[in-house]
Amino acid sequence: MSARTAKHSTVDGNGRSSGTGKPALRAWLRLWSCVGTVERVIRTRLHLGYGMTLARFDYLSQLYREPALRLTMTELSHRLMVSGGNVTGLTDRLVTDGLVVREQDPADRRVQIIALTGHGHELFTEVARAHEVWIRELLGSLNSEDVKGLNHTLGRLKHALDDEWIEKRGE
Amino acid sequence: MSARTAKHSTVDGNGRSSGTGKPALRAWLRLWSCVGTVERVIRTRLHLGYGMTLARFDYLSQLYREPALRLTMTELSHRLMVSGGNVTGLTDRLVTDGLVVREQDPADRRVQIIALTGHGHELFTEVARAHEVWIRELLGSLNSEDVKGLNHTLGRLKHALDDEWIEKRGE
Repeated sequence: MSARTAKHSTVDGNGRSSGTGKPALRAWLRLWSCVGTVERVIRTRLHLGYGMTLARFDYLSQLYREPALRLTMTELSHRLMVSGGNVTGLTDRLVTDGLVVREQDPADRRVQIIALTGHGHELFTEVARAHEVWIRELLGSLNSEDVKGLNHTLGRLKHALDDEWIEKRGE
Repeated sequence: MSARTAKHSTVDGNGRSSGTGKPALRAWLRLWSCVGTVERVIRTRLHLGYGMTLARFDYLSQLYREPALRLTMTELSHRLMVSGGNVTGLTDRLVTDGLVVREQDPADRRVQIIALTGHGHELFTEVARAHEVWIRELLGSLNSEDVKGLNHTLGRLKHALDDEWIEKRGE
């Protein structure tokens, strides 16, 4: 049983399983459960296959998706939404491992830039390919109509959540 | 921008935005993004409103959903899927706060049981009600057809994931 399996399925104020009804709550619990399971598999495979944490994967994927393969530390921290301290510590270790380098913005010396190295890019290209294969496998039980429907509904939800909640940062 | 907003959207092996195509990967990224945003809001509100961590919420909800309001430590740890050490530490703090108590299984003294106290039940009933209101609000941009579609598709995905991945615990 997953950490997220059936979790809170009875959080209905009566301490008993809701079963039917409360479709929004049920949808949330299923979303949470599915993401929890997939995330756990990805986390395990990243660790076993590449000795990579999910935090490292997230970090490197942010740089990898940039055409210039670099971001300011401020933007990177913002996207990863962890404390500056955590990003700094992670950066230190990635620099030590030769996956990223710190640079100074020539236009403003106060601005620190993090860039993916050639080695980092090479490694992450492999990891990203594996990640995509894993996701296709994990979502393999869905047919193309399911996936299309999910993309449609979740696209709208994401848009609304981003508009409503991202700037507020939780409240 | 969220930690999960548009993350890995370009993890296509070319280091560039995939845009179209790769619908399964896109569905995963949207799932991940939506869950990340909702989870962050819930985490913040639990903290601000009840001084409660998400880990505590998860822990207490497992007991709350049981008709007997109690579980063996083994089953609880299994469901929460964190190390026994973490569950033990969390239990210690919840005992100190009077929300749960440790009991011995009369049938087998080696088996430890964790039970929700009256105070714990009272508090969690309130938290669970608030949680449900928050979820309805956060998913408020979806109409009933969207929610129905999500429940259908995610129900199937959850079933497949549970069958395929839960026992393997990640691999």
